[in-house]
Amino acid sequence: MALAYPDDSLALHTDAYQLSMMQTYFMKGIYERKAVYEMHFRKMPFQNGYAVFAGLERVVNFLSGLHFSQSDLDYLRSTGEFNEDFLNYLKNWRFKGTVRMPSEGDVVFNNEPIVQVEATVFDAQLIETPLLNIINYQTLIATKASRIRSVVGDQTLMEFGSRRAQEMDAALWGTRAAYIGGFNATSNVRAGKLFGIPISGTHAHSLVQVYRNDYEAFKAYAQTHRDVVFLVDTYDTLRSGVPAAIRVAQEMGDKINFIGVRIDSGDLAYVSKGVRKMLDEAGFPDASIVASNDLDESTIKSLKFQGAKIDTWGIGTKLITAYDQAALGGVYKVVSVEDENGDMTDTIKISGSAEKISTPGQKQVWRITRNSDGKSQGDYIALWDEDPTNLPDGLYMFHPSYPYLNKTVVDYTARPILQDIFVDGELVYELPTLDEVRSFAQHHINSLYSEYRRDMNPQEYPVDLSQDAWDHKMNLIKKSRAYVDEISKNN
Amino acid sequence: MALAYPDDSLALHTDAYQLSMMQTYFMKGIYERKAVYEMHFRKMPFQNGYAVFAGLERVVNFLSGLHFSQSDLDYLRSTGEFNEDFLNYLKNWRFKGTVRMPSEGDVVFNNEPIVQVEATVFDAQLIETPLLNIINYQTLIATKASRIRSVVGDQTLMEFGSRRAQEMDAALWGTRAAYIGGFNATSNVRAGKLFGIPISGTHAHSLVQVYRNDYEAFKAYAQTHRDVVFLVDTYDTLRSGVPAAIRVAQEMGDKINFIGVRIDSGDLAYVSKGVRKMLDEAGFPDASIVASNDLDESTIKSLKFQGAKIDTWGIGTKLITAYDQAALGGVYKVVSVEDENGDMTDTIKISGSAEKISTPGQKQVWRITRNSDGKSQGDYIALWDEDPTNLPDGLYMFHPSYPYLNKTVVDYTARPILQDIFVDGELVYELPTLDEVRSFAQHHINSLYSEYRRDMNPQEYPVDLSQDAWDHKMNLIKKSRAYVDEISKNN
Repeated sequence: MALAYPDDSLALHTDAYQLSMMQTYFMKGIYERKAVYEMHFRKMPFQNGYAVFAGLERVVNFLSGLHFSQSDLDYLRSTGEFNEDFLNYLKNWRFKGTVRMPSEGDVVFNNEPIVQVEATVFDAQLIETPLLNIINYQTLIATKASRIRSVVGDQTLMEFGSRRAQEMDAALWGTRAAYIGGFNATSNVRAGKLFGIPISGTHAHSLVQVYRNDYEAFKAYAQTHRDVVFLVDTYDTLRSGVPAAIRVAQEMGDKINFIGVRIDSGDLAYVSKGVRKMLDEAGFPDASIVASNDLDESTIKSLKFQGAKIDTWGIGTKLITAYDQAALGGVYKVVSVEDENGDMTDTIKISGSAEKISTPGQKQVWRITRNSDGKSQGDYIALWDEDPTNLPDGLYMFHPSYPYLNKTVVDYTARPILQDIFVDGELVYELPTLDEVRSFAQHHINSLYSEYRRDMNPQEYPVDLSQDAWDHKMNLIKKSRAYVDEISKNN
Repeated sequence: MALAYPDDSLALHTDAYQLSMMQTYFMKGIYERKAVYEMHFRKMPFQNGYAVFAGLERVVNFLSGLHFSQSDLDYLRSTGEFNEDFLNYLKNWRFKGTVRMPSEGDVVFNNEPIVQVEATVFDAQLIETPLLNIINYQTLIATKASRIRSVVGDQTLMEFGSRRAQEMDAALWGTRAAYIGGFNATSNVRAGKLFGIPISGTHAHSLVQVYRNDYEAFKAYAQTHRDVVFLVDTYDTLRSGVPAAIRVAQEMGDKINFIGVRIDSGDLAYVSKGVRKMLDEAGFPDASIVASNDLDESTIKSLKFQGAKIDTWGIGTKLITAYDQAALGGVYKVVSVEDENGDMTDTIKISGSAEKISTPGQKQVWRITRNSDGKSQGDYIALWDEDPTNLPDGLYMFHPSYPYLNKTVVDYTARPILQDIFVDGELVYELPTLDEVRSFAQHHINSLYSEYRRDMNPQEYPVDLSQDAWDHKMNLIKKSRAYVDEISKNN
């Protein structure tokens, strides 16, 4: 039976090729060479105008105390693929690198570094897979949640996706990401326990089926809970469910807090209007109508357009799996590596597709905001030793693919996005509370002009390279071409 | 910081409404009433002709020893939503129900029960969410993997999706499901350790970038490994990568096992043909070409149609997230419940949408195969006390929505699909090995006519109700309508 290793660690939650490369570096004696790796994603998820960075806390949990257990090493040995000295070295290995990330909840964009790892080639390689796995998913879900938030104003959003999530971790960490992106509550009780997210949920159709009667079921529920929402669509929403809910609410009076009713099927626009009318006429104008049933930002917009009378939204499948785009696609590329003389040499990955060419060199992302209104003017990606703060003539920003799109920003503030989380293997960052993260997210989203925030066809937010970073990239592309020409002449 | 509970259990990995209903059942004194719940899904994933059932072993792991830890109970108490007697009862609670499922790897279809829980309403409700979470995801991925297998014949399929999976559990259990569905290997090392799946992976572009040269990188790799596959597209596949691979293979000779080369970008059809030609001309006709880059069954078919020379396929994002349909959508419905007199009463959930009406009563699924060729003729869903084996006049099967689609099968074998896994809380099922599960899957898929197996527009496999099950459903629909009419007259 699986999971039969009491000492199982997550050190092997990585791709086999990471360990293969680590063995090469170890056996060739270059495993302590320094390098800088950066993660970025190429396309905005859901064609959204921004993404909400999430996953930092999980990365901190993962890296803290990361080590190979005895059963991990025994397994690696059993494959016959690994060198004994290498395995012995793994035994006492600990992560000693520096990791930089944005604050969890900050907004991030495509083609800019959102994780930077400054470490030995050995350490940086091992953690590639888990970093991508964690950040790709949680950033995707926080962004999806934020899109849904953007169409409901300040109405309540509840995450209901556990049964449709892609296994347990996704249910758990996905609901945390959804909370960061603007959700209010979750149905997942463990997420409530571990993260302090408010939990929400009353009863299912099965309760009504067990009592074989809406009224009896609602009555029993009301007698055993203070806050009640009745699910009214088991048999017939308007003819049976809502009348029973009203009857129980009237009978119980002050003994319960009658929050409202939930509908989970049928034509939500039509039915919700009928329900609203019945509740109002029965003297419950404050009772809420909760709706669920394969909803997302697009169905919600349509329902609102139709005048649906829905106050609270329960969102499952389409959120927790990011159904319309189930992966972020972030990648992790080495941008600089120590050479045999101990000097750092920047490196580039060439590709036939222009957007797949990496941007060489260790970089910082600076968020440029205008002091007059606090709004973000764009992100400025500069080489690590550049300082774009307080330039007397303003900051010149240009689009890296279309340089004629340019502007000079004056009276601005430049905020560095990548900040130290681990330095030389030590956690140096104090994790904010989840509610602080959620507030960061709301604050940073609001610092974007509404043109970047709309859920359809947003303007493209400027993510620009500094002149030096751009020149450096062009230069390395040229060098790389010359290398290939040279090589192919010799063949 | 999260996960700070050493005693954390998975008992709270459930929806809040399950605990709310359990409290009602407890406080109203009906928590020991027996009920039968069944899980089914409504639509075939990916419009495939069959699904591959997966998740059983994970369910067994989950249910074995399931209990509420002290921190679980402390958390529930802290919410102020739960009754103290109820919490005390949870303290010593253990799952005492009966769970039936198909063998892992069996083929299953929409609108038939694929999990059956016969338990108290209390126990059955708690485990709804995790059962759906586990089975929905793993069945989805095993099915996706099987589709990909169906277009590659006996070529090697490698699962490369960990970095894009929806968090860690999805990477781990998803690759196990992919193996069941016909994959050969995975890049996820922990899946290798925990499940014994062969692991695979050589090196990334970063190795070449660290050595700043294809040849130097390949040489170093070859000097530190026995089995080698060189990734040839870091700078230029045909002009630099492949010539370097050939040079190293020639220089190293018998000292390495030169398996082949991998390409991860560019026009895979065009490039693979060029690579094949170069390898053949250099005297390596047996060297394999491994391809990866956002592949799935549809791009693979297209590449094959174009005559791409690819021997081994590395599949990531599109498999591990089931990108084109990221959720199975399975639901769990109560079909029978003990009434106040101790009798089991079958129950139905009505809906405006015909396909959402549940089929009442405890049921068995019988797979009907023709003895002459061992091929499946359809699934026959019968009430629990029916026995469709050995009917002297043959078995009459009809489509539940279109009864004029019917046939009588003679000389058949009827195999019950749902089998006991837990009985009264005790595990009674001996788990097969993963390789046995994978063989089951292949065997069961092969028992389907090819018309049901093709990846596009397959014939609809018959999933029929017995006459008794059909009559029973119609009867309960009528009763339910009469109930609603009665209720609404009184309003």
